[in-house]
Amino acid sequence: MNKIIPVIMCGGAGTRVWPASRETMPKQFIPLLGKLSTFQETLLRLDREIFAEPAIVTNHDYRFLVQEQMKEIGVSGDIVLEPERRDSAAAVAVGCELASQRATDAIVAVFAADHAVRNVEAFRDLCRKAGAAAAQGYVVTLGIKPTHPATGYGYIRPGALVVPEAGVAKVEAFVEKPDLETAERYIAEGYLWNSGNFFFRADVMRSELQEYQPEIAAAAEEAFARAERDLGFLALDREAFSRAPKISIDYAVMERTRHAAVIPADIGWSDVGNWHAVWELSERDQRGNSVRGQGVVMDGQNVHIRSDDCLTTVLGVDDVIVVTTDDAVLVLGAQHGDKVKQLVDDLKRRKLKEAQEHRRVYRPWGHYQSIDNGERHQVKRIVVKPGHKLSLQKHYHRAEHWIVVRGAAEVTRDNEVLMIHENESIYLPMGSVHRLVNPGKIDLELIEVQTGSYLGEDDIVRIEDLYHRA
Amino acid sequence: MNKIIPVIMCGGAGTRVWPASRETMPKQFIPLLGKLSTFQETLLRLDREIFAEPAIVTNHDYRFLVQEQMKEIGVSGDIVLEPERRDSAAAVAVGCELASQRATDAIVAVFAADHAVRNVEAFRDLCRKAGAAAAQGYVVTLGIKPTHPATGYGYIRPGALVVPEAGVAKVEAFVEKPDLETAERYIAEGYLWNSGNFFFRADVMRSELQEYQPEIAAAAEEAFARAERDLGFLALDREAFSRAPKISIDYAVMERTRHAAVIPADIGWSDVGNWHAVWELSERDQRGNSVRGQGVVMDGQNVHIRSDDCLTTVLGVDDVIVVTTDDAVLVLGAQHGDKVKQLVDDLKRRKLKEAQEHRRVYRPWGHYQSIDNGERHQVKRIVVKPGHKLSLQKHYHRAEHWIVVRGAAEVTRDNEVLMIHENESIYLPMGSVHRLVNPGKIDLELIEVQTGSYLGEDDIVRIEDLYHRA
Repeated sequence: MNKIIPVIMCGGAGTRVWPASRETMPKQFIPLLGKLSTFQETLLRLDREIFAEPAIVTNHDYRFLVQEQMKEIGVSGDIVLEPERRDSAAAVAVGCELASQRATDAIVAVFAADHAVRNVEAFRDLCRKAGAAAAQGYVVTLGIKPTHPATGYGYIRPGALVVPEAGVAKVEAFVEKPDLETAERYIAEGYLWNSGNFFFRADVMRSELQEYQPEIAAAAEEAFARAERDLGFLALDREAFSRAPKISIDYAVMERTRHAAVIPADIGWSDVGNWHAVWELSERDQRGNSVRGQGVVMDGQNVHIRSDDCLTTVLGVDDVIVVTTDDAVLVLGAQHGDKVKQLVDDLKRRKLKEAQEHRRVYRPWGHYQSIDNGERHQVKRIVVKPGHKLSLQKHYHRAEHWIVVRGAAEVTRDNEVLMIHENESIYLPMGSVHRLVNPGKIDLELIEVQTGSYLGEDDIVRIEDLYHRA
Repeated sequence: MNKIIPVIMCGGAGTRVWPASRETMPKQFIPLLGKLSTFQETLLRLDREIFAEPAIVTNHDYRFLVQEQMKEIGVSGDIVLEPERRDSAAAVAVGCELASQRATDAIVAVFAADHAVRNVEAFRDLCRKAGAAAAQGYVVTLGIKPTHPATGYGYIRPGALVVPEAGVAKVEAFVEKPDLETAERYIAEGYLWNSGNFFFRADVMRSELQEYQPEIAAAAEEAFARAERDLGFLALDREAFSRAPKISIDYAVMERTRHAAVIPADIGWSDVGNWHAVWELSERDQRGNSVRGQGVVMDGQNVHIRSDDCLTTVLGVDDVIVVTTDDAVLVLGAQHGDKVKQLVDDLKRRKLKEAQEHRRVYRPWGHYQSIDNGERHQVKRIVVKPGHKLSLQKHYHRAEHWIVVRGAAEVTRDNEVLMIHENESIYLPMGSVHRLVNPGKIDLELIEVQTGSYLGEDDIVRIEDLYHRA
């Protein structure tokens, strides 16, 4: 069997684990459980004996995050950029185009980037079987064996076995999220959860898309054909891609194709859909409490603390999830996990920046974080990765003081180029044209003190930019 | 009638409203309800038609806080410093000494600095009456009319009226904190809460102390006689004061004196004893929610949010108090307010600095706050009040960069004296002898970036100090 081409869908803007995740740093990119993000864990689950190099389909906004997180774990692969969100059918169609280039009958596996799988051995075994069934022309969904009558998932009714040696069955029906009573009946009757991860042959899926979704098929084909390679990314053509209707792959193809099959999966799966799921997946003490970061629980049970930045204490409260970050705190009743999205929508209506952005901002060259704000000053901590350089720029309304506290900086200031070492500083008067480069082998860290009457991020005139933002 | 001399007791280290209060910034000095601290509100309640200039009895550690908070509201008075905590009897004895200097038969009113009074008119009327009864030789306690069968206060059983025109009755008995059933009976029988605020004639209290607590009387007299005036404070003699036994004024005198009287008080009083009391005193919406600072409650009732530094959200939790500061978060079940002290004790055992200190540190010259910490650097924001100067100092292990972002600084660096204006900076190499002065009329604000291998507060050699700390 040829190796399976994994297509990882990671363009979502998940807000269900706010305030740890934000639109600018969605769920799949944060370390929710272990030290790695679920995106990284998803990639590392893909045994190279079974899987070829992955293809990542993501949003343009997340391109440097994806690149950085792949580099961190030493995984390479194609990174395809969607210029806008068109739901999963379009993303799958693009994945098909990419796989077809490698081989028209390539076997493709589509995985969400924000799911957790505890039993990796069972997962790999399952992938082998699903891949074999896909090679026979089936579109094979991973059907999770339910552990409880969940009302938050769609269900699949399996029919007769079609690939008996792989345990793969015909799909009799996809059914919508049920109420509790119906869910209990489904479980008794052997239904499975629809996990949204599936396997198919590229030519099979292409022909299904052409049959059921010709507009999507055409948009994806053209967007891919006209895609531009830039800085290691494959940027889909905006105009062509925007013609793809917004529809999920479930509605678009899975519920209509005659090739739909399902493989029962008992792999310790979770879609980590909300904070309650995170709590369930975390190690807990005898009282059901779990603490990540600096936290203390007194007189409480079934408490989950996630404390990223400060000391978080819970006293005399049960069944509560407390998430604290450097700029926002969430105190959540354990049974209300699914309402976090509504809360974030409410915060957006109130125009609170904490709804969408973190204090730390990621850039292609590293990141920065505002650490102090006054009326006429702002202090930032800036980290530049080795070999990276910021744009050549100037500001109309602010002067900047840079103090290097780690590493070395090569600073262009108008017509000079200066090396600034640890414990040295440089002053950039208002209007001076400047550029910051880390020529060294370790991270460059500096403290920037801005002074002036207007300190907005938009007072930046980019004269030249390595990352094509000028 | 001569004016009453108010003695404000504000040396306590209250941790019951942690994390807003800390040992280094106790409850009486923080704005718990309005914009002012309860200490300031206590001072402002003292109508100058009835009251003379106040005397403040506080701990040596809080001297600059007291001075600063009095200055803020334009109130002057004696500030007596206790070198260590010896409980309330010793503090009252010292207050007597001070009042006796003004007049041996001065009328004294002792007030706690951390109580709230909502009906200030009624309070003033009551003070007039209590003062008149004190002039006749009674030691008059404010007996609060109970609003519910509280188990957290001692009760007073009033007897026959002794000053009928003032409503002042003989105290029949002081009784300990009761259980709920007993408290209900007390209320039915007309008992009053013991508020710990009382009025007396200085000579009467002196003679009671001499009779019942001769050691305290002697220690206070000597500590006061040998007290030193320094920077506007009256510092009690440490050796003499330390001889005073640690005992409350209730046990020491009130429960034994034949002159004990009580005046029923219906003044909207609260000792603001815990977060639940703060919630009760706060303005609440229809669902019983109250928010101070930036906070959002969704699907919750009887929620109190106090958010000093970030966005605090509560979703799907009832009867909870959430307090967030820049370095610590408390999520507290509404009925567990009295356990906060235990929690803080637990945090102290874990040696967590958040148990006792705030990030912002107050100094006689202003304050500073750590805003960023790295392995080999630290960033502080420093505010120096007009006319103030820091000590002449040097550091063995760190260099400092100062960037002035507001006001002007006069900087001594070894043999130079330089003026540094807004948007200018100066570098202080390791080992250089330096001093920072604000010669201007507005606050001086600067950003300090420290670099070095050891950045502890104790790497400071004070060569000369205006505030006598060298």
